[in-house]
Amino acid sequence: MGELRFDQTTANWVIFAPSRSRRPNEFVRGGSEDGAGSATSSSGCPFCPGNEAKTPNELFAIRPEGAGSEQWLVRVVPNKFPALQVEEQPDRRRAGETFVSMGGCGAHEVIIESPHHGVQTSEQPVEQIERIVRTAHLRYQALMQDQRLQTVVIFKNHGEAAGTSLTHPHWQIIATPVAPHALRLRHEEATWYFDRTGECLYCAMVEAERDAAVRMVAENAHFTAFVPYAAHLPFETWILPRVHQASFGLIEEHQFRPLAEILKTVLTKLRLRLGDASFNLTIDTAPRGDERKGYFLWHLRILPRLTTPAGFELGSGMSINPVLPEEAAEFLRNVEPE
Amino acid sequence: MGELRFDQTTANWVIFAPSRSRRPNEFVRGGSEDGAGSATSSSGCPFCPGNEAKTPNELFAIRPEGAGSEQWLVRVVPNKFPALQVEEQPDRRRAGETFVSMGGCGAHEVIIESPHHGVQTSEQPVEQIERIVRTAHLRYQALMQDQRLQTVVIFKNHGEAAGTSLTHPHWQIIATPVAPHALRLRHEEATWYFDRTGECLYCAMVEAERDAAVRMVAENAHFTAFVPYAAHLPFETWILPRVHQASFGLIEEHQFRPLAEILKTVLTKLRLRLGDASFNLTIDTAPRGDERKGYFLWHLRILPRLTTPAGFELGSGMSINPVLPEEAAEFLRNVEPE
Repeated sequence: MGELRFDQTTANWVIFAPSRSRRPNEFVRGGSEDGAGSATSSSGCPFCPGNEAKTPNELFAIRPEGAGSEQWLVRVVPNKFPALQVEEQPDRRRAGETFVSMGGCGAHEVIIESPHHGVQTSEQPVEQIERIVRTAHLRYQALMQDQRLQTVVIFKNHGEAAGTSLTHPHWQIIATPVAPHALRLRHEEATWYFDRTGECLYCAMVEAERDAAVRMVAENAHFTAFVPYAAHLPFETWILPRVHQASFGLIEEHQFRPLAEILKTVLTKLRLRLGDASFNLTIDTAPRGDERKGYFLWHLRILPRLTTPAGFELGSGMSINPVLPEEAAEFLRNVEPE
Repeated sequence: MGELRFDQTTANWVIFAPSRSRRPNEFVRGGSEDGAGSATSSSGCPFCPGNEAKTPNELFAIRPEGAGSEQWLVRVVPNKFPALQVEEQPDRRRAGETFVSMGGCGAHEVIIESPHHGVQTSEQPVEQIERIVRTAHLRYQALMQDQRLQTVVIFKNHGEAAGTSLTHPHWQIIATPVAPHALRLRHEEATWYFDRTGECLYCAMVEAERDAAVRMVAENAHFTAFVPYAAHLPFETWILPRVHQASFGLIEEHQFRPLAEILKTVLTKLRLRLGDASFNLTIDTAPRGDERKGYFLWHLRILPRLTTPAGFELGSGMSINPVLPEEAAEFLRNVEPE
């Protein structure tokens, strides 16, 4: 049974999920965040067709037209070792001035991207990538029905340096009973920017990057991709909608295909240029209650894990980036996926 | 020539240090933060006695009494591939509303802990550990003489998962021309706590942990070590002074030996319990101007790198910790270094 504890020094909640670990005396490096072991071949892989019984009960699936339950294109299941669970309650408990905790209420799901074990996201057809982002959106909508949940974090880990040992391509969703403090702080900065300038900071960034043109990576009629001016990581790339939309929940029907297209383009460029580099992908979206505000724009961040954050980064919270965003963007621009 | 760029979305500065990287097309994982290659044997190691010419000019050294310049016990040199340099100026440059940068002004030094190549910090005699923390303190004082520098970040990376490939034991210091935003935010939280309760949050935490007793790891007359109630990482351990001192610069003569003693104890416990686990160590201290305030307490954080932060952590800024602090602390308490 997990819980969250309030870190008074940073005003951030920390999730404690003892079910995701061995006992301290058996603690070893490299525990998988996916909670499904480290199957590298398809035979033992719980995400492969035929092994459906190895996962908890299916929450959602997209199937080929007319297919039976044994066939699927995208499949969503609860994480077998969840960080948070809907069965818990988000009740606050307090012991004295300094110790504040709450129940480990939330959700933790896995989106199995494809029946194929060894395929990468970027190698899949656009139709399949569209199915994945549509699935993420449907699960977002479903989870936000639970009024106890404040934020839905959609993410993907690819490769060992990005925190996964599972080869079978998958995304994950964790819904939290508190808005992450870092998200609150970003909203605060964006609100101040909005109050000062009358504009959404993120929409202004998109405009400024399109004008400057030196950090652009890709673009279509509905989305823009660039390496941000102050990227924290080498080759960090953001994808943002070209209309104001604070929440991923507000994405419209006609945006899914262009989102799948630009995501395929950017991930393919990264794969061609950086080899099979580990990366994380996250969708940043407004917390409950801020979905229709004018000062945030949901966006997708792709975070290659080419460097290891060390003592300076952990101690100061600042990043050292050895690659200038202009050079990273040029390098990515100058390769054309087939 | 490096620069800092302001990330408007988080109000944090990012350090760009292109000298620390190969060109984008040669970018590979595992670049060393230490900037001294990856010598694993002593023959090619720039930190070993006899190889002094391989480092930039010595900034400081402790030598055995009566010894010549070829002999030393602790040695400080500039980092060969510095993230920041004193030759730069911290002048702000602005292009439009969204692009703000400044010169890469600062300092980046290496403290070579010992002439011995393969020794770990915890294996060194207390006298030698005392020399190391005294050296860190002297360099802190020297760097804070430069009024352009706002914060001195003292840290150590041990092991590959902690961002170093250099075996020879060493600490590092980076002085920044801005206070890290994360430090400002922690000061803000601590200030609010102080205003509400009239107490230093960190001093209150020390008292509460001593009372609760379940997360204590070690203690002596001048320092307390515990796994914090809301630890972000498994086996994360903090060492804090038992008197109020906002700045590491204010540490007093009689505190050096007890600090060396408790640091040796805690690092030895971690080594005995976790094997040769990678870890970072950071000293958190008040930025310029806040050194004598009542609401912060400098402290040392030891951060074992047993898990890999993945998409959820990067996306939300929240941590998932699979080990309860009480269990981690008990496990560390129940081993007695010789």
